[in-house]
Amino acid sequence: MKIALDVMGGDHAPDAILDGGKDALAASGALELILVGDRDAILSRYPQAEGEPRVEIVHCSEVIGMDEHPARAYRQKKDASITVASKLVADKTAQAVVSAGSTGAQMVAALFEIGRMEGVSRPAIASFIPTLKGPRVILDVGANLDSLPENLRQFGWLGRIYCSVALGIDNPRIYLLSNGAEAEKGNAVTKEAFGLLEASGLNFVGNVEAREITRDMADVIVCDGFVGNVILKLVEGVAITLMSIIKREITADTRSKIGALLVRPSLKRVAKTMDYSNVGGAPLLGVRGNVVKAHGSSNGHAMACAIGQAVDMIESDAVGKIEKALACAEHVSQ
Amino acid sequence: MKIALDVMGGDHAPDAILDGGKDALAASGALELILVGDRDAILSRYPQAEGEPRVEIVHCSEVIGMDEHPARAYRQKKDASITVASKLVADKTAQAVVSAGSTGAQMVAALFEIGRMEGVSRPAIASFIPTLKGPRVILDVGANLDSLPENLRQFGWLGRIYCSVALGIDNPRIYLLSNGAEAEKGNAVTKEAFGLLEASGLNFVGNVEAREITRDMADVIVCDGFVGNVILKLVEGVAITLMSIIKREITADTRSKIGALLVRPSLKRVAKTMDYSNVGGAPLLGVRGNVVKAHGSSNGHAMACAIGQAVDMIESDAVGKIEKALACAEHVSQ
Repeated sequence: MKIALDVMGGDHAPDAILDGGKDALAASGALELILVGDRDAILSRYPQAEGEPRVEIVHCSEVIGMDEHPARAYRQKKDASITVASKLVADKTAQAVVSAGSTGAQMVAALFEIGRMEGVSRPAIASFIPTLKGPRVILDVGANLDSLPENLRQFGWLGRIYCSVALGIDNPRIYLLSNGAEAEKGNAVTKEAFGLLEASGLNFVGNVEAREITRDMADVIVCDGFVGNVILKLVEGVAITLMSIIKREITADTRSKIGALLVRPSLKRVAKTMDYSNVGGAPLLGVRGNVVKAHGSSNGHAMACAIGQAVDMIESDAVGKIEKALACAEHVSQ
Repeated sequence: MKIALDVMGGDHAPDAILDGGKDALAASGALELILVGDRDAILSRYPQAEGEPRVEIVHCSEVIGMDEHPARAYRQKKDASITVASKLVADKTAQAVVSAGSTGAQMVAALFEIGRMEGVSRPAIASFIPTLKGPRVILDVGANLDSLPENLRQFGWLGRIYCSVALGIDNPRIYLLSNGAEAEKGNAVTKEAFGLLEASGLNFVGNVEAREITRDMADVIVCDGFVGNVILKLVEGVAITLMSIIKREITADTRSKIGALLVRPSLKRVAKTMDYSNVGGAPLLGVRGNVVKAHGSSNGHAMACAIGQAVDMIESDAVGKIEKALACAEHVSQ
């Protein structure tokens, strides 16, 4: 299988992206990579790329930065790495595209180059959220910062199918994130979405409060992309802060210090559970191809995981399954 | 000083509310309480209330439930406990009102009975958020679920003054919560609010991502009430989940179990830092009186803390200071 890797996108590009690519190649013999980016920059860091039979370089001269307006930059920079990489998926040269660059730019490139699935107004980025019982699905986490109620209904369907494909949970319990469990709670958008989800044919259970997200309650949490982005980053931030406070407290006196030595391996396991770099990337669901968004601050390990997730999506035919299920879903919900 | 206590509001009312009231009375000799609620229900649980010189009962026959539409319930239930308690502040019988009941109902009662300050379109609920360097201020956390950009500008001013009064931080660093640090990031509301905050005369530093909230960066975080509510509850939920996972992991083998015994006092200190019941209530800022909202699920201890916070607000003349500062703020921002 061939994956197009946007070498220029991300806070630590191109080094971390190339490191991740090399690790992913070493981990899977069936993987081929198309490195999309500045040829000189790539070869100066990875000279073996030219002789490696499983690697191809597609040169491009531009990159869309994190601080650029996505749609405007997409129109102006025809030779941007994310655009060129997305085209490779559109023309079936590659089976997936992976990027740690601007989320907005990746979304725009996917929409215009690869295209939406029928019945999907706005694709959504799905991510895993750590819970007491293992990872669960949350979407949207950043593709749509001003979602409409109808978008949230569609996210429910996308999440349902992704949850089944990625986690093996069939007929998952779908919840709508709100400020209270009662049906009456919510802002203008979620209140309207509640009714749409109730009538959707999904296993929609109701509203869920943020307090319950990391317990074992919802299999799929549906929310607006601005809110989902806040949730994802906050879980990460709180976990890091709490582990720092714990480290400080358990080394504050001699008795604790001895205990700290003994529990260190356990705490390392906990930190690993909460570490996003192990999760890898987050797929953009609802487009006609495998599009994986990696964390902007990804290091080599995180990039290798994101590429691994693209491999999983290709192998499980996630896109085909979502397309088929959506066709039935449209039928169910009308 | 006299505080009106809504005995009927909250998940564990009236028992937990009365327990908290008794504890607060024991803690402060200067405190007098007006217990607002069903006289029989109060006396059956707290028979000494009638003989206690620092306690008065104001009977009322109704209560607004969590699942009722706040404005509609306020209009229909003229004798609701939160309305009667708010009236006591409006007519200066009491200097503060404390309730663990419906947030929406408390907001409506405060608006119509006590009234807004000049220059404030929508009052906001401010709360403390735990960070590496101690508590910081976040608002709104639930009074306005569909905030406008101009509301967010005003929240900046309310937060600035509250941060100085409650935490002693003068000229606090104000940040706007967004999905990225760059000025271009945000949804439609935050993008417009960014410009308003920049021109506000506040020490506005820029956007902050949710990942940074619990680090030492912002002194005041401004956000929409729906998002702020999610943040507050998620911090609580993640902390609880993480402590459970840690407990599970550090008792998984013998070596860790011994360590667990030694670090237990330290971990208890950490859990206490993250425990909301110690924070007490959250003030509704921008109304012409002290209004404190306690957590809906408050137990006796949490209620006592919320009453304690009302005492602090009265003693520090928070409302007077906010009113004075807003008068100058209006001048500064024009």
